[in-house]
Amino acid sequence: MKIAIIGLGLIGGSLALEFSKNHTVFGIDNNQEHQQQALDLRLVSKIISFDKIDLMDVIVVAVPVDKTADVVFSILNKIPKNILVFDVGSTKENVCKKVKNHPKRNQFLATHPIAGTEFSGPKATVKNLFTDKVNIICEQSQTAKEKLELYQELMKPLQMRFVFMENASQHDKHIAYVSHLSHISSFMLGKTVLEIEKEEETIFNMAGSGFESTVRLAKSAPTTWTPIFIQNKKHILNALEEYIRNLQEFKRNIENKEQEKIYNTIKKTNKIKEILN
Amino acid sequence: MKIAIIGLGLIGGSLALEFSKNHTVFGIDNNQEHQQQALDLRLVSKIISFDKIDLMDVIVVAVPVDKTADVVFSILNKIPKNILVFDVGSTKENVCKKVKNHPKRNQFLATHPIAGTEFSGPKATVKNLFTDKVNIICEQSQTAKEKLELYQELMKPLQMRFVFMENASQHDKHIAYVSHLSHISSFMLGKTVLEIEKEEETIFNMAGSGFESTVRLAKSAPTTWTPIFIQNKKHILNALEEYIRNLQEFKRNIENKEQEKIYNTIKKTNKIKEILN
Repeated sequence: MKIAIIGLGLIGGSLALEFSKNHTVFGIDNNQEHQQQALDLRLVSKIISFDKIDLMDVIVVAVPVDKTADVVFSILNKIPKNILVFDVGSTKENVCKKVKNHPKRNQFLATHPIAGTEFSGPKATVKNLFTDKVNIICEQSQTAKEKLELYQELMKPLQMRFVFMENASQHDKHIAYVSHLSHISSFMLGKTVLEIEKEEETIFNMAGSGFESTVRLAKSAPTTWTPIFIQNKKHILNALEEYIRNLQEFKRNIENKEQEKIYNTIKKTNKIKEILN
Repeated sequence: MKIAIIGLGLIGGSLALEFSKNHTVFGIDNNQEHQQQALDLRLVSKIISFDKIDLMDVIVVAVPVDKTADVVFSILNKIPKNILVFDVGSTKENVCKKVKNHPKRNQFLATHPIAGTEFSGPKATVKNLFTDKVNIICEQSQTAKEKLELYQELMKPLQMRFVFMENASQHDKHIAYVSHLSHISSFMLGKTVLEIEKEEETIFNMAGSGFESTVRLAKSAPTTWTPIFIQNKKHILNALEEYIRNLQEFKRNIENKEQEKIYNTIKKTNKIKEILN
């Protein structure tokens, strides 16, 4: 098959790497440096322009989430009936709303492969990034059956675990708590420590004390995360409010040396162990 | 040498494991289950009672930090001049203050090996836990030169990187930001997500999205962390205040869709990459 990938970042580039084993992969990216890197790393066989997309079998949209809806919409405007389009963004409600009444809605599939690292760009591309990871599919009922089957066939070699979550808004709510809040807590932890620690050596020396893993996400790219935070504003603000409320309560408990309350809160939170193991 | 380790948890037990390669290690722990596990795992050759400590060459205090100062003080009261005592707790000011004027102060060394996992108890003991990790030594000027040398000789096979930080209060301040705040941010992230996510499956499915690494520390034991938070209250409250203030500002920026401010904050925080890599 002929596959075009729009956006050759960590996710787009890593998909290109996997697809190019069995298919011909073309790249579209308006960053010239990324174009060259993708060619050098042999992620794609050729860089093409947007007006060539109607020659493809599959089009992947892997751009920052503030661009996704418009890009998908203009692709649908342009392509013949045989082509499957899917996106891979971390928010799903916005793109689903935008194409809701498009006559070619059934050629589009909204997906969210939950995979990544804190790095970005074509050079961050990782082999087997998707193996055994979860892939959330939203509004599958709105996609033509044969297009969904084509997608599943295409993704089979990547060995992902499919989770179907019909309601895109529900996806965005859950991901705000489990993923986006994690990123904000990590960015703000990094910011707080950088502000107080003028001597970088101290951070480095003490990083092994838990800081390093908790602050890992604070290395993530602003180009990816700024649009996510703004687009998923409604759910993120709720999550942040709860998080700050919990922090303030815990702070009061430390202030008042409420040993039992602190102990019980930690003990209860340890439940996360059973869920994740 | 004969070494007694008081407190056979993750750190005490892992030290026992290392020391028993070259020395005879005795265990003291008032938890009978932990006593038996330490024997079964051959971490120690024998469990002894506290009144046998004056027969040792070295005594390690690896108890929760709210017990450390009293335990070290009563050891110093009891032991002859040849014995070295050191503790391994995550706070250093309290124990240093307590023994400040003790006539045997110079037999004591305040250490903080920065190593650990989110697990606890003798069963959590890990081989080579300390290799290449940082070991912070406070108030080394208050310890007899030959005792410090004995300590360094004893620790040599563990291959730790020594960092000398004379001022115990400075240690506690820095560790509040870099370590203790990380733990609180992680506990509260776990709490917030557990409260909103009644369906554990959703957490599990989305955990790969950054949550898993950020929440790792929320698995840590309440017996270890409750006394640390209370004992290092002063510095932790400052750190928490800054952290909450940063979260509130970031929340306002999302609320007002301040794209540029969000972008710049993330970009600036990415500096953590250079420091930790």
